[in-house]
Amino acid sequence: MGTDGRFGGAVPPERQISAGFIRARELVEAIAACGRSAEFPDRGVSRLALTEPDRQARELTAKEMRELGMAVRTDACCNLWGVLGGVEKGPGVIIGSHLDSVPEGGDYDGVLGVAAGLGVVRDLLAGQPHPARTLAVVAFTAEESSRFSLATVGSKAAAGRLTPEDAERFRDARGVTLARALRDFGGRPEDLGKEPLSPKDWAAYFELHIEQGPVLDRTGDDVGIVEAIAAPTRFMLELEGVQAHSGACPMDLRHDALAAAAEVILAVEEAGRSEARHGSVATVGVCECHPGAMNVVPGRVVLKVDLRGIRSESVARMRGAVMAKAVSICGARGVACRLTPYSSDEPVAMDTGLTALVEDVCRERGVSHRRMPSGAGHDAMFVAERIPSALIFVPCKDGISHSPKERIEWSRVQAGYEVLREAVKRRLFP
Amino acid sequence: MGTDGRFGGAVPPERQISAGFIRARELVEAIAACGRSAEFPDRGVSRLALTEPDRQARELTAKEMRELGMAVRTDACCNLWGVLGGVEKGPGVIIGSHLDSVPEGGDYDGVLGVAAGLGVVRDLLAGQPHPARTLAVVAFTAEESSRFSLATVGSKAAAGRLTPEDAERFRDARGVTLARALRDFGGRPEDLGKEPLSPKDWAAYFELHIEQGPVLDRTGDDVGIVEAIAAPTRFMLELEGVQAHSGACPMDLRHDALAAAAEVILAVEEAGRSEARHGSVATVGVCECHPGAMNVVPGRVVLKVDLRGIRSESVARMRGAVMAKAVSICGARGVACRLTPYSSDEPVAMDTGLTALVEDVCRERGVSHRRMPSGAGHDAMFVAERIPSALIFVPCKDGISHSPKERIEWSRVQAGYEVLREAVKRRLFP
Repeated sequence: MGTDGRFGGAVPPERQISAGFIRARELVEAIAACGRSAEFPDRGVSRLALTEPDRQARELTAKEMRELGMAVRTDACCNLWGVLGGVEKGPGVIIGSHLDSVPEGGDYDGVLGVAAGLGVVRDLLAGQPHPARTLAVVAFTAEESSRFSLATVGSKAAAGRLTPEDAERFRDARGVTLARALRDFGGRPEDLGKEPLSPKDWAAYFELHIEQGPVLDRTGDDVGIVEAIAAPTRFMLELEGVQAHSGACPMDLRHDALAAAAEVILAVEEAGRSEARHGSVATVGVCECHPGAMNVVPGRVVLKVDLRGIRSESVARMRGAVMAKAVSICGARGVACRLTPYSSDEPVAMDTGLTALVEDVCRERGVSHRRMPSGAGHDAMFVAERIPSALIFVPCKDGISHSPKERIEWSRVQAGYEVLREAVKRRLFP
Repeated sequence: MGTDGRFGGAVPPERQISAGFIRARELVEAIAACGRSAEFPDRGVSRLALTEPDRQARELTAKEMRELGMAVRTDACCNLWGVLGGVEKGPGVIIGSHLDSVPEGGDYDGVLGVAAGLGVVRDLLAGQPHPARTLAVVAFTAEESSRFSLATVGSKAAAGRLTPEDAERFRDARGVTLARALRDFGGRPEDLGKEPLSPKDWAAYFELHIEQGPVLDRTGDDVGIVEAIAAPTRFMLELEGVQAHSGACPMDLRHDALAAAAEVILAVEEAGRSEARHGSVATVGVCECHPGAMNVVPGRVVLKVDLRGIRSESVARMRGAVMAKAVSICGARGVACRLTPYSSDEPVAMDTGLTALVEDVCRERGVSHRRMPSGAGHDAMFVAERIPSALIFVPCKDGISHSPKERIEWSRVQAGYEVLREAVKRRLFP
């Protein structure tokens, strides 16, 4: 623990609000305006990756980095880096998260971690001495899969797990490739995979994130220390029936793609419910019905399915159950069913050393905390493949996220912020 | 029966192909290019009402009308009229249908009836003498509900059943009102309802239409004589759940609007199946899922429901069953459900005199035919409120319609065309 009262001394730290924390809140609120509709402010923020609202958020973030004296740069995948050189040699520390949102999303998902990182830089610079090791803050590109049907794009790239071919393959709803979108933002998709993060350069990665689930809100704990992240298994199901006139085609001659899809949607839900005791979840988030007219029996439906759990075998059981049900449902209805896999990753454990460090800090500062899994994927998942990583959760109201109703209590977030700052400090002055 | 061999004499008429029939086929094929995508020709025609493709189809039709010496005009609702004056006083005859299509629809729905009407005019003019009574061909505006969520717009207007207020109330998906779209096409929505069709002017309305169902294709009959049309009962259901993160929100805390919608979709299908013995059908043709991202539990779903039957009490039972199920499904899931009615019309009987006339013509010409109901709504439904109306069905392959796979056999359609021509002729020379 530091000798500066601000970082944990005789004065209870929770009574004090640091300049860095105040500034983090201001930055979160400023970024929340990027992608919010003036016409429909209650529809939340729609700041899809590599769009104009994302550019605005990046500019606000880069401006803050420059104000803090950090060197600002972007890499091949448009990840935005602010780097503050240390006075000694040796591997540094990264704090990061993301700035992009889902459509009609909340104000805090991702943004809070980037802003908290910059707040920590501000607080550390206000203290003495200058950090011994390099400290970087990063905003990873396209953590949300909403635009390119691919999640954690930037952190995958940072881990050397994204190729130029991948960037050509994934497209948004309008057909724009990830490669094209990166290039339009100054990225170099042709260089993807060339310079992955190296443990020689970096000793630790910290990410602070809202839980996006109801556990901390229900238990009252201020900090969640993530032990493992449930990677999503995702696929598309295309159901092809026979489009027909809704008035003239008798019920017994129909091959209604939407009715088949309805059964599949319920089968996905049932698969999730039957594995709920293992903490697994199953969701159909996309249902596109074609041609989508009131007087036409739907001929084609596209479903996108998302399965998650921190136990691989539970996710595999859900996938097997959904596929078996889809085949039998469609077979019985004379509807064709085609599966296109998007991703199928293994759960990822966080670094045990850093997890223990964060837990120690919580104990010493009297912050109520709990070890827990993460149902949601995070950038830390891929960074962890290259360098030791820790993921710190703070509560969000009712566990609601990916929604305009996403809310936090700043007074509760402050505890997590200070735990992050203290843990980072201990790695910067080794 | 006329003395001209072409209209039924010693030579079996089905062996001959008239100039009018050939021209009708050419016009159908020309109009099929209006609204067909050059990039995706196999996606059928998308010629929504009062759009650019509709304008192109109207121009081809008006050109044909002028070539036949008909006076061309449009009314307040943009219905396109070609009128050929008779040599005597007395009420005339109308042949009509529509030119607009559903999204990704077929080539024949509606268009065939308009083109056949103009073919009949051509054949009658080629014979002697000039028709005694006025003969009109009409293309009604927006028979399909696809654009404005309101069906048979033009024929409703012709029956005096559409008000200027209606035209302001109904909007397309982009928010354009029907009134605005009519005005852009030279219509006068403010005059809607002022000049309904009058039985003083018109003695009969004939409509030739593909069946859009499988009955004639299965039985092998060439002509269906419609006795009654099942008017649709339509409503929107909005399901409002709680949008949440697909990874972090446990199954037991969800209020998934799409899973609720899936149960409602199956309840609609079940309602249709349980009334199938009365010839009723029930369809969900529209399912919009919001926000529609793979990593978000859907918070809101919009369903549009279409119920039809020629027995009012059967339709009422379906509506009651769907509503009761929707309320209990949503109640159990903590999802809100709101119903907005679009329309709820009574089945409409065709004119018994004209029906008998058409049947007589079929018998005399040896055309295989059957009396039948129409599950699909048609313009004849509203015209019938003002003047005696007949609806003649011709077969379409596998009963498929409202689909790019809509097909006809011209050799079978010829029989229906000739029955139409003969029936019209008998009303023109009373």
